[in-house]
Amino acid sequence: MKLANQAGRAVLVFDDSVADVAEASDGRLGPDPMSVFEDWPGFADWAATITAGTAPLVEEELGNPVPQPGQVFAIGLNYRSHAEESGMAIPSVPATFTKFPASLSGPFDDIEIVGGSVDWEVELVAVIGTVADRVSEADGWSHVAGLTVGQDISDRELQFAAGAQFSLGKSRRGYGPMGPWLVTPDELADPDDLALGCSVDGEIVQDARTSDLIFSVPKLVAELSAVVPLRPGDVIFTGTPAGVGFVRQPPRTLQPGQLLETWIEGIGTLRNRCT
Amino acid sequence: MKLANQAGRAVLVFDDSVADVAEASDGRLGPDPMSVFEDWPGFADWAATITAGTAPLVEEELGNPVPQPGQVFAIGLNYRSHAEESGMAIPSVPATFTKFPASLSGPFDDIEIVGGSVDWEVELVAVIGTVADRVSEADGWSHVAGLTVGQDISDRELQFAAGAQFSLGKSRRGYGPMGPWLVTPDELADPDDLALGCSVDGEIVQDARTSDLIFSVPKLVAELSAVVPLRPGDVIFTGTPAGVGFVRQPPRTLQPGQLLETWIEGIGTLRNRCT
Repeated sequence: MKLANQAGRAVLVFDDSVADVAEASDGRLGPDPMSVFEDWPGFADWAATITAGTAPLVEEELGNPVPQPGQVFAIGLNYRSHAEESGMAIPSVPATFTKFPASLSGPFDDIEIVGGSVDWEVELVAVIGTVADRVSEADGWSHVAGLTVGQDISDRELQFAAGAQFSLGKSRRGYGPMGPWLVTPDELADPDDLALGCSVDGEIVQDARTSDLIFSVPKLVAELSAVVPLRPGDVIFTGTPAGVGFVRQPPRTLQPGQLLETWIEGIGTLRNRCT
Repeated sequence: MKLANQAGRAVLVFDDSVADVAEASDGRLGPDPMSVFEDWPGFADWAATITAGTAPLVEEELGNPVPQPGQVFAIGLNYRSHAEESGMAIPSVPATFTKFPASLSGPFDDIEIVGGSVDWEVELVAVIGTVADRVSEADGWSHVAGLTVGQDISDRELQFAAGAQFSLGKSRRGYGPMGPWLVTPDELADPDDLALGCSVDGEIVQDARTSDLIFSVPKLVAELSAVVPLRPGDVIFTGTPAGVGFVRQPPRTLQPGQLLETWIEGIGTLRNRCT
């Protein structure tokens, strides 16, 4: 199942068409994209009975498929390659910060460049489907509704300011594009091993596989839920692999006018114009 | 105005009685404690017309007055005295992390001690009433619905684990008692200068004034809203003064059986039993 937010309404995606959740369920479900998380298993069962779209997919109308998550977990230094390029130690526990929810944006939204240190970070984003409270790694995937693509856009100056924690520099308005849709794990040949990457004006700058995650998706569900309950509609930005701009010689940053494209195999591609 | 969450319902507090918001408004407002933030100015205008309670205040039934904030901002090292005792630099920007919302709890809830490094932190908590998007410090207070008392209970081992960010160690379930009620700024002689403190089994361990904040409430509203919009029902844990346990010689930690009491002048007192 692929679930998107088209013009503010939950829709199921079929190639170039969509089925409006509220219409197809005679108003029993939707239209709010967050309402599907009130009973994700029930929603998923119902969605499996819908086999075709009835209206065109309109990419320009797609928003963040999870526009109001209750909790946004974001993990730093979760690929060995990125921890090494950053000159930082491999964390003993997930290096967990947040992207404040009001910073999240849609898959094709513009990114407003503020200052001279804005950087890219392709990330696999896991979306929680059922409450996870002290669950094991073995049960981790069973609490995941689906996966989507995220960009953890980072203002490095703010992120690394004297005494700063990461969260604020990761949370400028519009610095969290997500989408283009949520894909359920059953749609993927191996949800633990997906190619992901991003490009700037067509030049590939990150290219890796999620099998290189230090804390995998189910391991993160276990580690985080050991501390605090995860709830339906929460999201986890799982961290970025090597290839970010600030560690390059010379450092690279995003500039107004550039096109940032971000993809994960089997899910889809974000396209965000820097302004 | 004093606004509480009694048995899951929004109530106005008058000495030892309360007025149920849903009943007093003939169902137009409440009962969900978060619903007052859908139109805080309208709610505040209406609440000013209610002058007496109609049911007893039942302390044991009080929950977190803001049980589901959309965003929880928490500020580290925001009193000079605490930055100095911690041996850390005075931050140049607010050292902003989050307490994940599912960690928040009520004013008289128990605190489950996990491990051997759990510490106290009395904090003034500001609650947002209207959207604040790039506002000035001079306008900061006008976006604040009210103030409440918070405890930023901290698992120091998790907070300072190798490579960690602060957020996870601040977010164990139940490690964010808030309450006992939200107090509007007009109820306070000087909302920028409030005595605050906490005690363990009656021994005062923190005792300070909010006038010593490095980033004051209106300054935080300005600094945070310059980065990301603040929304009604968001909360800001503004940081703790000197006197925490982990910097003492020898270090002190919270132990099962201890009673932690936490107060702010003109607002009220939290009482949380460690278990």
